[in-house]
Amino acid sequence: MTIGIVGIGLMGGSFAKALKKYKLASKILGYDHNKEHQKTALELNLVDEICDLNTLKQCDMIVLCIPVDGIIAFSKELVEISKNTTIVDFGSTKELILKNIPTQIRENFVAAHPMTGTEKFGPSAAIDGLYEDKIVVLCDVCDNSSYHLEKVTNIFKSIGMRIIQMDAKEHDIHACYMSHLPHAVSYALAKTVMSHENPNAIITLAAGGFRDMSRIAKSSPNMWCDIFRQNRTNLLDALNIYESKLAMLKEMLQNEDYDGIHKYMAKANTLHDILK
Amino acid sequence: MTIGIVGIGLMGGSFAKALKKYKLASKILGYDHNKEHQKTALELNLVDEICDLNTLKQCDMIVLCIPVDGIIAFSKELVEISKNTTIVDFGSTKELILKNIPTQIRENFVAAHPMTGTEKFGPSAAIDGLYEDKIVVLCDVCDNSSYHLEKVTNIFKSIGMRIIQMDAKEHDIHACYMSHLPHAVSYALAKTVMSHENPNAIITLAAGGFRDMSRIAKSSPNMWCDIFRQNRTNLLDALNIYESKLAMLKEMLQNEDYDGIHKYMAKANTLHDILK
Repeated sequence: MTIGIVGIGLMGGSFAKALKKYKLASKILGYDHNKEHQKTALELNLVDEICDLNTLKQCDMIVLCIPVDGIIAFSKELVEISKNTTIVDFGSTKELILKNIPTQIRENFVAAHPMTGTEKFGPSAAIDGLYEDKIVVLCDVCDNSSYHLEKVTNIFKSIGMRIIQMDAKEHDIHACYMSHLPHAVSYALAKTVMSHENPNAIITLAAGGFRDMSRIAKSSPNMWCDIFRQNRTNLLDALNIYESKLAMLKEMLQNEDYDGIHKYMAKANTLHDILK
Repeated sequence: MTIGIVGIGLMGGSFAKALKKYKLASKILGYDHNKEHQKTALELNLVDEICDLNTLKQCDMIVLCIPVDGIIAFSKELVEISKNTTIVDFGSTKELILKNIPTQIRENFVAAHPMTGTEKFGPSAAIDGLYEDKIVVLCDVCDNSSYHLEKVTNIFKSIGMRIIQMDAKEHDIHACYMSHLPHAVSYALAKTVMSHENPNAIITLAAGGFRDMSRIAKSSPNMWCDIFRQNRTNLLDALNIYESKLAMLKEMLQNEDYDGIHKYMAKANTLHDILK
């Protein structure tokens, strides 16, 4: 099976590595509008060849690892692919993508969200094992033909992923709380520190807590702007709830209600009874 | 040198491990009001003996690894120690502690904040290497006699720490941005998710980003309530700034100002040019 990867960055490059490790493709082609990324992907041996759009369309499977707005735009290029060509996207949002892809390829188009990543990007960020033992959410698979769904499912299982199926609408809400809201929170924390008159002096004291809390604020603005746009309504809802929880904590601190703060923290602690 | 550790939890227990590793104490005594912790500390061989208050006072060095309000309260018990007994506290706040310790022991009392830790607590949380290659802030050392300051400095250097000296007021502001605000932000994120009608379903999708962002929301409410109380004013200031940065992001999202969001994210990214 020839597999074409569109966008050879952290996700696409790491996926190529996984495909090679488990010998799941006879040939891996890379498609990327960024010339530097093309060069690096070849140098790092992530893909066998860089291809043009016509060659890409001949692949047995096309994997879209580009920002979510790009996925919608690029799907229009794929309207005339063969009925046997599977398309899978790795976007962090799902509802708007599935609403906007051409109906001609809806059966072929498997909407996937691998729940993994790092804050790094570009082909040099590709790592071994990024997908192993991680969850991938497949959305609205009732609209896929079983041929394409099985092809994608087999690949994800073969690289060690656990599959969850979900409604796209539900996915976008869950992904908002587990990923998009945390990114907003982390960006705002980084922005707060950077707005200080002397951030360097403060950052000297950074330890594990701050490092963890600010890590994802290093993520790509191009990618995250798109995600915020596509999941705008859910993110605004989540931000409203988050703001109210933060305001509650601040109010208790203002009122010196330390019993209340203790209870609040103890309730937050219970998250970790679920999150193993 | 006999060293007495008050509070044999994550910080105290890990410090005892470091003292043993580098053979810096002839005997390590543990003092803890929690009987279970006493037992575990002995079983784990963190300390050589559990001692009473009178024996503790005979130590050459007393290390206070208890919540910050406890440090102030306990310091009153140490008023009559020998001029040669060094006291060092590991509290996360400094200004209020230094304002409230008895003047009779001010020379002996070295105020330290090791910038390290995990979200775990109790003696079983003690780990090897917690202090190695980490920063410890010493505050208002001009009020210490050189004898006590050198004793503490030598110990910290011997276990591989890097020492920064700072004014207590300045420390409390910096520690607020690097540690106390991130804890508030993480507790609020955990509280947001736990307030959802079905947190279990959402948390199934948790990946690295959410795990990192919620890790410190597992921290001890006893310890963190005290810290929030002692650094209340700075934390309220920081929360106000943080809220305004978050509100700015939300407003841009409401107004679909994606150029603005892109710039905001790019500015947040610059934190990582400083944070290596």
